[in-house]
Formats: sequence, C-alpha cells, structure tokens
Amino acid sequence: MLEMVDLGKSLDKADYEKSYRAARDRLARLQRRIYEEHVPVLVVLEGWDAAGKGDAIEKLVGRLDPRGYRVHAIHAPTPEEALRPFLWRFWIRTPGHGEIAIFDRSWYHRVLVDRVEGDAPRRVWQQAYAEINAFERMLADDGTLLVKFWLHISAEEQKRRFKKLERSKFDRWRVTKEDWRAHRRYPAYLDAAEEMLERTSTAVAPWVVVEATDKYYRRLKVFEETARAMEAALAARKRAPLAPAHAPGPEARKAELRAAQRFHTALLDDVDLGRRMPVRRYHDELKKEQARLRKLEFACYERRRAVVVVYEGWDAAGKGGNIKRVIGALDPRGYAVLPIGAPHGDDATHHYLWRFWNRIPKAGHLAIFDRSWYGRVLVERVEGFCTEAEWRRAFHEINEFELSLTHFGTVLAKLWLHISKEEQLRRFRERQRLAFKRYKLTDEDWRNRKEWDLYRVAVADMIGNTSTSYAPWTIVEANDKGFARVKAMRTIAEAIERSLGEKRPPER
Amino acid sequence: MLEMVDLGKSLDKADYEKSYRAARDRLARLQRRIYEEHVPVLVVLEGWDAAGKGDAIEKLVGRLDPRGYRVHAIHAPTPEEALRPFLWRFWIRTPGHGEIAIFDRSWYHRVLVDRVEGDAPRRVWQQAYAEINAFERMLADDGTLLVKFWLHISAEEQKRRFKKLERSKFDRWRVTKEDWRAHRRYPAYLDAAEEMLERTSTAVAPWVVVEATDKYYRRLKVFEETARAMEAALAARKRAPLAPAHAPGPEARKAELRAAQRFHTALLDDVDLGRRMPVRRYHDELKKEQARLRKLEFACYERRRAVVVVYEGWDAAGKGGNIKRVIGALDPRGYAVLPIGAPHGDDATHHYLWRFWNRIPKAGHLAIFDRSWYGRVLVERVEGFCTEAEWRRAFHEINEFELSLTHFGTVLAKLWLHISKEEQLRRFRERQRLAFKRYKLTDEDWRNRKEWDLYRVAVADMIGNTSTSYAPWTIVEANDKGFARVKAMRTIAEAIERSLGEKRPPER
Repeated sequence: MLEMVDLGKSLDKADYEKSYRAARDRLARLQRRIYEEHVPVLVVLEGWDAAGKGDAIEKLVGRLDPRGYRVHAIHAPTPEEALRPFLWRFWIRTPGHGEIAIFDRSWYHRVLVDRVEGDAPRRVWQQAYAEINAFERMLADDGTLLVKFWLHISAEEQKRRFKKLERSKFDRWRVTKEDWRAHRRYPAYLDAAEEMLERTSTAVAPWVVVEATDKYYRRLKVFEETARAMEAALAARKRAPLAPAHAPGPEARKAELRAAQRFHTALLDDVDLGRRMPVRRYHDELKKEQARLRKLEFACYERRRAVVVVYEGWDAAGKGGNIKRVIGALDPRGYAVLPIGAPHGDDATHHYLWRFWNRIPKAGHLAIFDRSWYGRVLVERVEGFCTEAEWRRAFHEINEFELSLTHFGTVLAKLWLHISKEEQLRRFRERQRLAFKRYKLTDEDWRNRKEWDLYRVAVADMIGNTSTSYAPWTIVEANDKGFARVKAMRTIAEAIERSLGEKRPPER
Repeated sequence: MLEMVDLGKSLDKADYEKSYRAARDRLARLQRRIYEEHVPVLVVLEGWDAAGKGDAIEKLVGRLDPRGYRVHAIHAPTPEEALRPFLWRFWIRTPGHGEIAIFDRSWYHRVLVDRVEGDAPRRVWQQAYAEINAFERMLADDGTLLVKFWLHISAEEQKRRFKKLERSKFDRWRVTKEDWRAHRRYPAYLDAAEEMLERTSTAVAPWVVVEATDKYYRRLKVFEETARAMEAALAARKRAPLAPAHAPGPEARKAELRAAQRFHTALLDDVDLGRRMPVRRYHDELKKEQARLRKLEFACYERRRAVVVVYEGWDAAGKGGNIKRVIGALDPRGYAVLPIGAPHGDDATHHYLWRFWNRIPKAGHLAIFDRSWYGRVLVERVEGFCTEAEWRRAFHEINEFELSLTHFGTVLAKLWLHISKEEQLRRFRERQRLAFKRYKLTDEDWRNRKEWDLYRVAVADMIGNTSTSYAPWTIVEANDKGFARVKAMRTIAEAIERSLGEKRPPER
C-alpha cells in the first residue's frame, strides 16, 4: 500500500508547536500510568535512511522520565551477537513491566537489509517472518504493547536529504558509501518493505505508516499514535485484566488434573524402570562416552555449533549426578551448567522465556540446563503460578522458541529422568539418613511428592506436546543411576553427531 | 512424537462399558449447555485408514440430540468443490452458534494425502499450513471450540485390519487398491503426519493423539477428551465472556474515532474529486471498456479464473449505476451481483466471513459484491456492532481471506467510490425531489451522513490496512459518474489482464 501514501502531508510550525507541547505532557502522564500498571511498551521505528527516525525518537522521549525508557539503536550485529540466533539481541532487550523500550531499527533488519543485500539466503529470511510474528505474538499475549512505525519518504526526498547532509561540515560523515548504494537500490527495498508490512501487520502488532516528508507532521504523528496506543492498552487492561479475577482455585485445578489422569499419562505407563547396568560395564561405558563427548565438544567448537541440553525429572531422580558425569571429561571453557529455580528480579518482570534467551549458549558452546523453561508447564501449571491460558499456550511457544534455536543450528537434547514413586521414597529416606545428603531434601520435596499423580499428568502432557522432530524428548529410565547416566550421555552424543552430519549449514 | 505413542494401551470391556454409559450422559448434558451458551464446536478426526474414525464418531454421537450435530465425511473434492479454494468446502461447513460439527477427515487432507500422493506441489501444501492455522485461529477467536484427534495405529496393525476386512463378505468392498497403495507408503505418511502435528498444534487448536489399537481405549479417550474440552470452553467463557461487560459506550467510541481524525485520513485528503469525463468521451470509453470486459469474461471462463470485485463507497456514491455499466455487456451466465446488507439467520450465527466464503465465485466466474466483508471495519466499527478487538483483528483476517483467494488464482479488484460531502448532499436532495429515486433514500442515510467524519477515519484505516500487493484498493473519484464508471471498468480489466498474464498457474 506504500504507493498510496500521501508524501505531501505537512503541518505548519505554529500548529505543531502548540500540539507538541500538549502531547508531551500527555505522554509523560501516560508513562506514569504505564509504570503503575506494569505494562511493558515496545516502540519500533523502521523506515528509510534519513527518514527522520532519530529525530522522531528525540521528540518522543522529550518529557519522559529517563529511568523508565531505553532507546536501542540497532546496527549490524556485533561479532558477539552473530554467535546467537538473530532474535537473541532483541529478546534480551524486551522491556520489563512498566518499561518503555524504543528501537531505532529492529529485528526487521533481517527481512529488509539482510534480504536485499543478499546477506541471508531466501530460506532464512522467509523463516524469519514466522519467527518475527511468533516473537511479537508471545510478547503481546504476555501483555506487552507493541507499536511499530514505518517512516516513509520517496527516493527523491532521500537523495535530497543525503545531499544536504553532505553539504554540511558537521553531518557529512553521516552519509556513507553504503547509504548511497542502498539508495540506488530503493526499488528493491521498496518491494521488501511492502512485503514486510503485509506479512507482519498482525492483529496484535499492526504497522503504522508515517508520511515522513514534513518533520512536523512526522513527529506529531509518531507522538499521537504512540499515546493513543498506550491509552487503548490501558483501557483494555482495565476491562480485561491479564489474570482473570475468577480464575479456578487450587481445588478446581487439581480436580482438572485428576480428571485428566486416565488418558494423559499413556506415554509414561510403560517405561521400563527395571533397566539397569552392571557396575563394571557402567564404568567402561562411562569412560567411553566421556571420551566421545569430549571429542564432540571440540567438534562443536570448531564447527561453531551451539548445544543445549535440558534436564528435567522427578525430585531425586539424579539430575545433578548425571550432569556431573556428562561434564566429567569436558573442557570447562566450553560449557556452562545453569541451575534454574523460581524467577526473581528481572527474570520475574519479563516474559518467562526472556531469562532463557538470556542464557542460551553462543555458537560453539554447550549449555546444560538443570531444570528449564519447562517449569512453565510443570510446577507453574500444577501449583497455579500461571493461568491455564498461559501454560496451554506455552506448549506452542516453547516449540517456537526451540525452532528458533534449531534454525540457527543449535543442537537440542531434552532428557526426562524418570524414576518410580517407590524409588523416590527410598532416595528421600537415604537423604534423611545420611548427613552429607540431608541438605538436598526440603519440605517442598515432600509436598511435591504428595502431588505425584498430578505432576505425572503434567509431565506426560509436556512430553506429548513438545516432542518435535527438531527437539525430541528422551525418557531416561533412572531407577538405576548408572544406566541413566550412560543413556543420557549417549543421547546427547547422538544428537550432536546427527546434527554435525547434516548437510545444511547453520543459518549464520 | 508419534514414535513415543504407546500403541499397547487398552481398556477392559467391563470398565469401558461402565465408563461409556456415564460419559454418554455427560456429553448429552454438555450438548445442551453448548446450545444454551451458543458455543460452536468443531471436532476433527484424522488418522490412518482403518484406525477407527467412523467407529469413534458413532460412539461419540451415541446420545446426542441429532438436531444439534452434523457429521461431515470428507473425501477427495467433488468437481464442484475443486472449482473453489481448498478451504471453501470446510468454511461453509463450520458450525454456527450452539452447533457441533464433526469431521471425519478434514482440511488436513491437503498436507497429508495431497502432499504424499503428489497431487499438490510443495509450494501449495506449504502455503496450506499458513492457511490452515489462520482458518483455525479465526474460528477460535470468534468463540469456536476446536478439538482435533489423530488416531494412531502401526503399519502392522493397519495391515491386520485390512486383511480382516477383506476376509469379510460384507466389508470386503471397504479395502481398495488405493488403501493398499497408501499402506505401502506408511513411512511417507508417517513423516507427513509428524510434520502436520508439529506445525498445526497451536495454542487455540492443539492436537490430541489417540492410541487407537484397542477399540475401547480409543473410543473412551475420544469421548472423554471431547467432554473435557467442552467443559473447559464453557468454564472459560463464564470467566471471560466474548463481549466484555465494560465495553466502551457509543460516546467513548466516537471520541476515539474523532481523536484519530488528524492522522488517519491522509490517504483520502488529496483525492482529486474534480476529475471528470466529458459526456461524449464517456460514451466512447464506455463502449470500449465494455467490449474489453466481455472479452476478459470469456478469457476467465476459458482459463478457469475466478474474479471478485468489491464495491464500497459513500452512500449515494453511485455504486449501483457503476455496477450496471460493468455488467452492461457481460454474459449473465458468467457473473453474479451480490448485494450485502446486515446479516440475518445463518449469516449472523457464524463467523462474519462465513457468508462471504459461501458466496465466492467458482473458477471461471465473476462475483461483484455491492458492499462486502469490509462492513466489519466500516459500519460495524463505527456503529459499535462489533467489539474493538473484533474490528482490529479483522484487518488481518481479511488479508488472510483474500490471500487464500489469491492462492487459488482468484483476481481481486477492490473499489472505493469516493465523493465529497457536498456532492452527497446534492444527490440526497435530488433523491428527495425525484419520485422515482425517492425509495433509495432512507433515514439511515441521513444518520450515516451525520457521522461522515467518523466514517472517514474508518475508510482510511480500511484502505491503509487492507491494501496489499495481492489485493490492492483503488480509490475511484466519483463526483463525476462517467469518470467513475470508466475508471472502475478499467481497474477491473487491468486486474484481470495482469493476472492472466502471470506465468504461475493457479494452484488446482
């Protein structure tokens, strides 16, 4: 629709100045309400070089409390950023509750510049559309307000502005050879922008096209549309708060889980917990698998593959000891073990996936998560720490998250350490008995144990809904620790070997 | 995750019979509540041939009131169905308020059979994923409960069942050569099913995999999961009704529209309403364009292209007279003019796009809509006949709808007939004066006229948000009727010519 944009729109200076003063105070008031109501706000400015993005942002923040906003100027990824999936640097910059994040250029870089300049092959920028829409939908579902502007000027206007900048002693440096090259490709960028607007204007994150020739008109439109969107978001939240007042209580929740038992645990019913490994064989295998993993760790480093290992399992299933064996022979510069507990601080004021985006390994490195994002559909579901709508949509969100990692070439191995209820009791008692193990056993463990059957439903639902071709779950029979350790190591090794054997290179 | 499904699950007969009797009554009670609460329910059964879909459906409807459900057995499209986009035959079968529609096979045909058998090229079934997800999301957003089952059996089990059927005198006919051929392709179908489950298990329409070896287990699982989904939907609706109780009143709505005036009407500000065509030239052009359209109508018929023309415009903008000229020289067997007013009956108890899916032209035919689905973002928005969330997401829904039509090769021409407020007044007065025109003018026209400025915002938002590369809007300057008619005809002709000139064949 860009051909329809009336680039002649303008505003006279007196009108602008009057309106701007009023609007500035209005936005400052709105910022306070955004803060009080804990709304995360994300403003994106995209558009042509020299269209006035920086200028619009300067005006936008004119009266805002600087503690409440952050402006992110996005350029080509740094070498450090290039070692992660392309959305990484944006996910970690998403605003927390009551914060405003303003992006001068954004994740749309990939479907504009990377596309037109040929830095990303077709497959990659096509995938990016789905990833971008999923990213924005997840944030919106979580309560984030998204406002996206496309600042539009004509090729002639761009040329005029470049020339004007070049005539100025102070601004000359701003116009680079790349800018002129991009200018000559205006028609190709126009097609890309048109397609981008079409494919990413969604119900939750629509684009606003700004006629950006006249600076007064442009500034005030960005201003007014931002304010209107904030007002609408505040009003909508008043009408339908995110946590519904009549959410089902713990009893109703547990009844629901109990009712689901019959048909939701089939996946776990026939796990053969009798599987064991004789001690001597265990020691032989352990050595062999550790050597294999060591080699693979190095291969991943050389080939710049990231590896994510997820450990989930019953309390006392032996996650800690299992992880110790995995890293036993690894070079500690190549991996990190990340224990995940209840979220606090920034982790609690952002989308629940934010903390995991912050912790994903860079290319060539290995991250082992001792518990993970799956807490959302396990403890948070069973204990009611999130709403039903939240854990239900989490299955899909998690699949999308893991697909993003996979697109980047990341290897995923997800292990569910499974033990019997009797075995857990035995281990709990042992922990009580042995002084050096006692610290491991808490009241919470006993509490969780009481809800074993409910957790069982959540576990089976989790495995059933998030075992995908690109990130499958492996159920590890863990009544015998030796068997479980070797199986875990083999699973990880095989996942890495399979990935290294694939023809398709990672997308970087 | 299909490799994880435990196909050994079973239930003993006594247990099943007791549970089934109780479940049957429970479902009958739920059907009444679904009816009272106006919830549309859509149940999909997919799975292997001979997995027991028909049997599960028979049990499912056991005690239901037959007036409240419809079972749709889906085979390959009929010749009549093949003349429309692939989702057409499913859209028109979606359930209305309080109805239950049960599909024995469904729109997933395209990503399973059409894909594996090579009846649809890769591009087409890849697009189908996006269309399917959009279809299901639109229904869910509108309040429809979706329950999707995949009935899973092993290749060996399928073979056993085919053989057993063949041994029976009565059932022999059920197993065809095609069934055996598909059986031999079990691994290819398995891959396709796996990908299908992954890509279409969304938050609003997740799949339930059913271990279908044992008939008792299979039947009861389908039963229980359907009942549980209905209960959850009824409970959720109680907590958050679709039309929020505190929706903004008409004054707030109008204030919102008024506030948007300044920056939302740019598209319409500089339309040159002075454009006219001298009468003699008009008559010459009219003849020429009519002949051109006649030829194109025939070309579309020959090449099996469907054409959709949308007329929207101000009251008294001349839509009727314009349409008359367009069809002036056409073969009446090739087109239909479809006047759209307020929805009644079935049109009002389905998704608002349902009535338009019901009316789209078949391949080779032309449909001219005098008003259209754009009512959602025009009159329904301004008059508050739908909620803000509804008209906001409609922009995206409409784009997806039109993209579905385009994928099928349908040509879209969308015309906004634009006149000035003064010209409208002149025409209203003329209608009052001339007895034979008086019937055209209603109180509603005067009422709408009072809200001119508010409608102007809605019109500009509509054009800005739904003008896409595949279905662009054309603003027709219509103060001069002759000019408007010729421009409309040319726009339609050019859209058809452009489409006929494209290399890519439609997807059938």
